[in-house]
Amino acid sequence: MPARPRTLHFNLFLHDTGHHEASWRLPGADPTSNLSLAAHQHLARVAEDAKFDSIFLADSPVLWSDPGRRPSGKLEPTVLLAALAVSTSRIGLIGTASTSYNEPYNLARRFASLDHLSGGRAGWNIVTTAGEGAARNFGLDDQPLHRARYERADEFLDVATKLWDSWSDDAVVADKASGVHALGSHVRPAGHEGEFFRVAGPLNVPRSPQGYPLLVQAGSSEDGKEFAARWAEAVFTAQPTLEESQAFYADLKRRAGAVGRDPDGVVVLPGIVPVIGETEAEARELDAQLDRLIAPQYALTTLARTLKVDPHRLSLDEPLPLDLPDEDEIEGAKSRRTLIVDWARRDRLTVRELIGKLGGGRGHRTFTGTAVQVADTIQHYFENGAADGFNIMPAVLPSGLEAFASQVVPILQERGLFRTEYEGTTLREHYGLARPRNRHDDGAGVPELGRVTAGVA
Amino acid sequence: MPARPRTLHFNLFLHDTGHHEASWRLPGADPTSNLSLAAHQHLARVAEDAKFDSIFLADSPVLWSDPGRRPSGKLEPTVLLAALAVSTSRIGLIGTASTSYNEPYNLARRFASLDHLSGGRAGWNIVTTAGEGAARNFGLDDQPLHRARYERADEFLDVATKLWDSWSDDAVVADKASGVHALGSHVRPAGHEGEFFRVAGPLNVPRSPQGYPLLVQAGSSEDGKEFAARWAEAVFTAQPTLEESQAFYADLKRRAGAVGRDPDGVVVLPGIVPVIGETEAEARELDAQLDRLIAPQYALTTLARTLKVDPHRLSLDEPLPLDLPDEDEIEGAKSRRTLIVDWARRDRLTVRELIGKLGGGRGHRTFTGTAVQVADTIQHYFENGAADGFNIMPAVLPSGLEAFASQVVPILQERGLFRTEYEGTTLREHYGLARPRNRHDDGAGVPELGRVTAGVA
Repeated sequence: MPARPRTLHFNLFLHDTGHHEASWRLPGADPTSNLSLAAHQHLARVAEDAKFDSIFLADSPVLWSDPGRRPSGKLEPTVLLAALAVSTSRIGLIGTASTSYNEPYNLARRFASLDHLSGGRAGWNIVTTAGEGAARNFGLDDQPLHRARYERADEFLDVATKLWDSWSDDAVVADKASGVHALGSHVRPAGHEGEFFRVAGPLNVPRSPQGYPLLVQAGSSEDGKEFAARWAEAVFTAQPTLEESQAFYADLKRRAGAVGRDPDGVVVLPGIVPVIGETEAEARELDAQLDRLIAPQYALTTLARTLKVDPHRLSLDEPLPLDLPDEDEIEGAKSRRTLIVDWARRDRLTVRELIGKLGGGRGHRTFTGTAVQVADTIQHYFENGAADGFNIMPAVLPSGLEAFASQVVPILQERGLFRTEYEGTTLREHYGLARPRNRHDDGAGVPELGRVTAGVA
Repeated sequence: MPARPRTLHFNLFLHDTGHHEASWRLPGADPTSNLSLAAHQHLARVAEDAKFDSIFLADSPVLWSDPGRRPSGKLEPTVLLAALAVSTSRIGLIGTASTSYNEPYNLARRFASLDHLSGGRAGWNIVTTAGEGAARNFGLDDQPLHRARYERADEFLDVATKLWDSWSDDAVVADKASGVHALGSHVRPAGHEGEFFRVAGPLNVPRSPQGYPLLVQAGSSEDGKEFAARWAEAVFTAQPTLEESQAFYADLKRRAGAVGRDPDGVVVLPGIVPVIGETEAEARELDAQLDRLIAPQYALTTLARTLKVDPHRLSLDEPLPLDLPDEDEIEGAKSRRTLIVDWARRDRLTVRELIGKLGGGRGHRTFTGTAVQVADTIQHYFENGAADGFNIMPAVLPSGLEAFASQVVPILQERGLFRTEYEGTTLREHYGLARPRNRHDDGAGVPELGRVTAGVA
């Protein structure tokens, strides 16, 4: 049987009025869409009509930015995605949740529940949650060390997968005649005793359609990439240039191979901010219009917090100070800080210019141009070892998504690079990834996460 | 303005194929409805068409019973209710969550999110979660002591209400011209430092339509009743007779008054299991049919666990042993155990007979008869100081709900005892309860939970 042709994958990164921090100030924007079910339903449906693989919600259990700056309240992802599951039928539903500030039993249960009620469309973006702000909402004075957070995350995944495997796929027999609903011998304890967790199990929900939710990850630090190589099936990443994307892509596939996984079982999805115009000039003007709406009083404070410097040391029309704290001294958003500093120095940006670029894409690559130009760039990345698909982060929502869906997607479909219909029903099927085997059902120990090869589903 | 006439309130207690443990074995039952979104949507819509105040999901973070006995896997309530919010428009959505095995920040966030996306229809049934099974899923060897669980629950509610009040109702201004989305001075830390929790806040979601979700509680122990008097706005209770319902009702209203609350601000809802037939004989035969389907091998084990005795000490055709452990030695399901033992001894039941009665109503009152008989009993309770409404627990679902909705509800509507249309849009409005004031918005300290009086909403 011939190998299935390699095609693109698209995830829509939902973010109320758009990823540009000033998008809520545009004349047509609904500035309370962050709390609106209807606004989220619309975005999910547009993405589903365009045959996107999935939608995605970021999250952190803390009020992340100054509430003045932009819409800052957010609905909790598993709850919001459950509502969106009812409003859609095929698109995948990926929610962020923290391994540092949740208990494995509760979180494994919620994702299994979402997977059941969506018919196998749940995905979990696994984060370890940097920052003392979140820590202080959970009884801590400061965040756990970077390394300790990843150690806990590893054990968290170990517990969660044990719980998701605690019911065999054939445990429920529902035999009315004998009065036996499930086979007790096919429902097993988790029996986990580790450094961070002791969890008896079994889970109180049977194994879900996908076995496990799709496991997604986005950390780009050394610990983050090692974690992704071990666990992630889809990886979001912020890479500002083609060359950096290619390097990240090759590195991650190599790391996955090094731990014995099929490199094709890890789908790499760089984030891009498409800004689409009828002409390139129109697209650039939309970009500039947004940057002019950024309120520097908030952006300066946020930048200073990210860089861990006193805000008074930053001047809008000067470059960054030279004596910033070293990377090793910084816990938390490790690689993001490095990326920002490197970028500002390489392009000799003033603080004001840096704020403009961060406000638009937050370090992700902005593709500004006509629909054909954007499609060409996507194809170029895809065919040159930089991406298996993209995490689409429109600067303005819903208009930026509508433009991408109606103008860019058809071009890629015509070129045979993107699906015109869903072939499967589950999120894993959209990404061409296998359903994990249950460790108890074949005696093979921990199941392998891997890619579906043609003819073997 | 004349006082609003006092009318009944109905909550539907959802429970897959019904509250009778053998209901899944009936010929028409869908034995996997526990995991079916469609089955839950149908039940929610029937209840909404009948103008019920709310639907309700019980929960515990543990596999509660032998998986052979009946459908035992359950979808997590906040996730399932979010999906049902999309499938309904007016009915309230009450979910159970544990104060012992959750973090206040996460849970306050999820209920606020559910309240936002349902337009003010969220309710939280607050439980402290008895049993070592749940404890062992969260790193403990045994459950915390009964008293300690309630002390933590009290502090949990203190933290949660601080978080729900952390955004003033008018904090979001969304001023596009000035670029200010929310007023920083109207978003305040929680600043909680207590025995069980330290939580900085603020919450990362603005104050929700109801301010707080409706606060519901069902513990009937001494600690549970004191907790209900302090916090609960609706109380579920299992009372096997009219006299016991009257005593509970009077006691709870007195306790609420004793802590300075309006007794009418606590709605008391005894659980009833209606079994409706064309004739009384038909109803009784349905009851008996269900009892014959109970598989004693599972029920005996469950009863022994509840009573904390060795299962081998229970014989199906003998009464309970006389030397059961004293109440004081039992942590956990305290009042439920007392109720069961008292009932078995008073009615001189054999273990088999006791199992039959527990399998049907689990200690709740079964109303068996024609629709008129059931309506008469409801009215009698309501007009004689035993109930403000009922927690409806059909033995068989959906048929028992459909019978109640189509036969009993119209009789009560005709008698002017139950609404024929929703008057409000929020869950609190259905129950005639006020929206809590924000402690920061009027300088009055902790807001009073209370009943809406006529003309003052």
